Amino acid sequence: MQTLPFSTLIAVERQSAIPIFKQISNSLIELIKNGKIKPGYQLPASRDMASMLKLNRTTVIAAYEELQAEGWLEVIKRKGNFVAQQLPVTSPRSFEVSTPEKLSSQNQEIFYRQIAVRQPITRQLKPYQLMINDGYPDARIAPLDLIVDRYKFLSRRTNVHNKLLADGSNGSISLRTELALFLSKTRALDITPEQVLITHGAQLAISVAASMILQPGSTVIVGDLNYPLVDRLFEQLGAKLIKVKVDHDGIDVDAIENICKQSTPSLLYVIPHHHHPTTVTLSAERRVKLLDIIRRYRLPVIEDDYDYDFHYGNAPILPLASAEHENFVLYIGSISKTLAPTIRLGYLIGGEDFIWQASKLKQALDIRGDVLFEESVAHLFSSGEMQRHLRRSVKLYQKRRDEFCELLNSSLGNTAKFSVPNGGMAVWTLFDPEYSIPQLSERLATRGVFMNDGSIYKYKNDVNGIRLGFASLNSNEMQSFAHALKGSW
Amino acid sequence: MQTLPFSTLIAVERQSAIPIFKQISNSLIELIKNGKIKPGYQLPASRDMASMLKLNRTTVIAAYEELQAEGWLEVIKRKGNFVAQQLPVTSPRSFEVSTPEKLSSQNQEIFYRQIAVRQPITRQLKPYQLMINDGYPDARIAPLDLIVDRYKFLSRRTNVHNKLLADGSNGSISLRTELALFLSKTRALDITPEQVLITHGAQLAISVAASMILQPGSTVIVGDLNYPLVDRLFEQLGAKLIKVKVDHDGIDVDAIENICKQSTPSLLYVIPHHHHPTTVTLSAERRVKLLDIIRRYRLPVIEDDYDYDFHYGNAPILPLASAEHENFVLYIGSISKTLAPTIRLGYLIGGEDFIWQASKLKQALDIRGDVLFEESVAHLFSSGEMQRHLRRSVKLYQKRRDEFCELLNSSLGNTAKFSVPNGGMAVWTLFDPEYSIPQLSERLATRGVFMNDGSIYKYKNDVNGIRLGFASLNSNEMQSFAHALKGSW
Repeated sequence: MQTLPFSTLIAVERQSAIPIFKQISNSLIELIKNGKIKPGYQLPASRDMASMLKLNRTTVIAAYEELQAEGWLEVIKRKGNFVAQQLPVTSPRSFEVSTPEKLSSQNQEIFYRQIAVRQPITRQLKPYQLMINDGYPDARIAPLDLIVDRYKFLSRRTNVHNKLLADGSNGSISLRTELALFLSKTRALDITPEQVLITHGAQLAISVAASMILQPGSTVIVGDLNYPLVDRLFEQLGAKLIKVKVDHDGIDVDAIENICKQSTPSLLYVIPHHHHPTTVTLSAERRVKLLDIIRRYRLPVIEDDYDYDFHYGNAPILPLASAEHENFVLYIGSISKTLAPTIRLGYLIGGEDFIWQASKLKQALDIRGDVLFEESVAHLFSSGEMQRHLRRSVKLYQKRRDEFCELLNSSLGNTAKFSVPNGGMAVWTLFDPEYSIPQLSERLATRGVFMNDGSIYKYKNDVNGIRLGFASLNSNEMQSFAHALKGSW
Repeated sequence: MQTLPFSTLIAVERQSAIPIFKQISNSLIELIKNGKIKPGYQLPASRDMASMLKLNRTTVIAAYEELQAEGWLEVIKRKGNFVAQQLPVTSPRSFEVSTPEKLSSQNQEIFYRQIAVRQPITRQLKPYQLMINDGYPDARIAPLDLIVDRYKFLSRRTNVHNKLLADGSNGSISLRTELALFLSKTRALDITPEQVLITHGAQLAISVAASMILQPGSTVIVGDLNYPLVDRLFEQLGAKLIKVKVDHDGIDVDAIENICKQSTPSLLYVIPHHHHPTTVTLSAERRVKLLDIIRRYRLPVIEDDYDYDFHYGNAPILPLASAEHENFVLYIGSISKTLAPTIRLGYLIGGEDFIWQASKLKQALDIRGDVLFEESVAHLFSSGEMQRHLRRSVKLYQKRRDEFCELLNSSLGNTAKFSVPNGGMAVWTLFDPEYSIPQLSERLATRGVFMNDGSIYKYKNDVNGIRLGFASLNSNEMQSFAHALKGSW
């Protein structure tokens, strides 16, 4: 049998990030694919190949084992290593002889919903140097390494899948237990782990809660303004929005009572801390009144308290859900806001039966979460690391808020005004009615700064404002933004 | 100033997993919390504290810095470290003086959907030694470490958030690009990254696609039997199911044509490879016929091809979506099936406009995915590691299928029958009508083996069967299962 010149056919790069045995198996696969080595061909014994390539024999054995595992090689005992007769690259079976002409997309029939008007894609040539979000935490200070290390540790345990299957679709039992404890300590919520449903982000928690209650034609009371994505969600579910004014003390609860006197709304959506977008807090007096309305009119409520942990100066006010509400208040929170916008974890708290039913509804939308990841985050709570991270974040964000508001004062000029928020991660900035935020946004873009153009808040009203997130900006970044802002008027 | 006996108050364990500086800061926080150290108290200088505790001075400095970052300590220049006057533990403000009596949950009003009959919780005392799932991959062979390492590497990069914000709610651009490439190579799908929507698992991809098309009262054609969670999803969306028989060659396309002649169904849901639960493949002949029906009757289709990559012996058949279908076929796939049930990644492929609109609808349900995680999985594709993993898996699962079916033959007895599946991860097993699968399931539980009781397939029909997943079981586990099965008749 003639031996191919493998020392020239197989190139080994010792500096490469790819392990050498993989480089060998990859090269051999290429040789098989392009026909240089045919099915049935006997490869040199590992000892011979090793000496040809000037490598350790174990490296060649590892490469052969890899090839065998992938199905490229057949090992016949006491005979040797042969290229498999049936290679793992099988072409799929086609089933159509002739393909009809492709229609132009102009003629496309629309059999589906039109959610929004499609805008032309403006391709961005250079990436922005600085991006202003509408209120994200700073992922750079989050203990992501601890989560990742725990995840790696857990993924190597053999009983992981038993745990997974046993925990079901409500989410990891450890995380539900830790959250019940954390929420009782920080928010005086008297709950069991059975009352916690973990979701892929708080938005999905709101989706599940709303889907449990709303039907096409249902009415929902929302703030005016309100978080635009929640308005859109309710509309997608076929509900009608009743808008109620939000002032300095939060949503107008007298207006809510008037609505309840005249009709039977299916749901109220309320953001008690740092209302989105205007950042106001629902006052204690209004909370007492609202609880009374909830009880008297049997009004189901989604209380979206995404910002509870981020209160500066004075203390946060306990949630509606901490008082007796006969299970009418469904409480929403977010771990994404605590750690990083990429970490997608939210939760829904409700009566035990509600949560059980909601977990069934959720399962058909989204089978389960990454329970290993949830376990890793649970460990962050049980080790106290999450609580420490929160204290560090609050302290830092308070400082950043102060610095940011000072910079805004000196760089915004007379066209815009804002109030210093007493918590949260963004400043709500209102511009003069005739001022064009989209133009400002474009001018900032030429300076490498991304800033929203405010169009999402303009949805069905004439508000001329944007949220400017400060929590994720360090001092240098804030100053760059203020500088760009000054130059863009 | 009197110094407290810190050497006895602060216990340092050198063996602990908690870093020593954290142990010191934790002890000091406890002393502050329980009042042993009061606001305004001056801590010993780091040099003095270090000598008292017999530790390196840098360790004490790290502890002080931690306390300062969390807000427990104030550093006054040239004076020293003082316990903060305003401690970071602020009690939230309560707003209700008297709390009304808690109602018993018996009297609870139901203002929400009842999805399913609630069963009593049977608390499991011992964890199962072995769990039989209905067709999961073996996470133990998945390259999870590579994903985790990449994730860690990416999370330390500073431009991560620019990337995140730029990629939008369709999912990471890298992963969409890699998937478009992978699907064109393996399935002859002629698509661009703009036609790919990444979702948190394939179930959410189906939810989004169905929500784009269905309205309350719409009709959907589904297989009889069908994947129960999809039936439930369609019903939750208010649609009516029209059930069409599934035989050895897949769903009955003549029956579909008859339905289209008499009415205008809104949607067809089809699983072309290894139909769930029965594991049959839709034949090439029927695919040709079905494509003709789709084009003639303008019938939107969700093609759920979750199992395409796992075909043994002969080659898979190309999807409907690979032929010309005038954008009527929406194609669904799953990365969870390729890697591990905990990795929640699925995708939806459709016309460019459909996907754009669907991404807007999805955004209101579930804002975004973990784009860092998606980037890490994209790297698995670009490095070729995913393709190698697939080849290894297919080879291993084919072997496991053969071994499992042989074991089933000898341990199932005459009460049940099955066909060897030509792909996928589970065997569909049908029992005699009078045989009680729940009883078998209970007997297996006493032997430490979890097996489904088949009730999910009994939903609105009288099928007496279960899916037995083999892909995640190694040889020992299969033999334990067969042994437990033999002893449980």
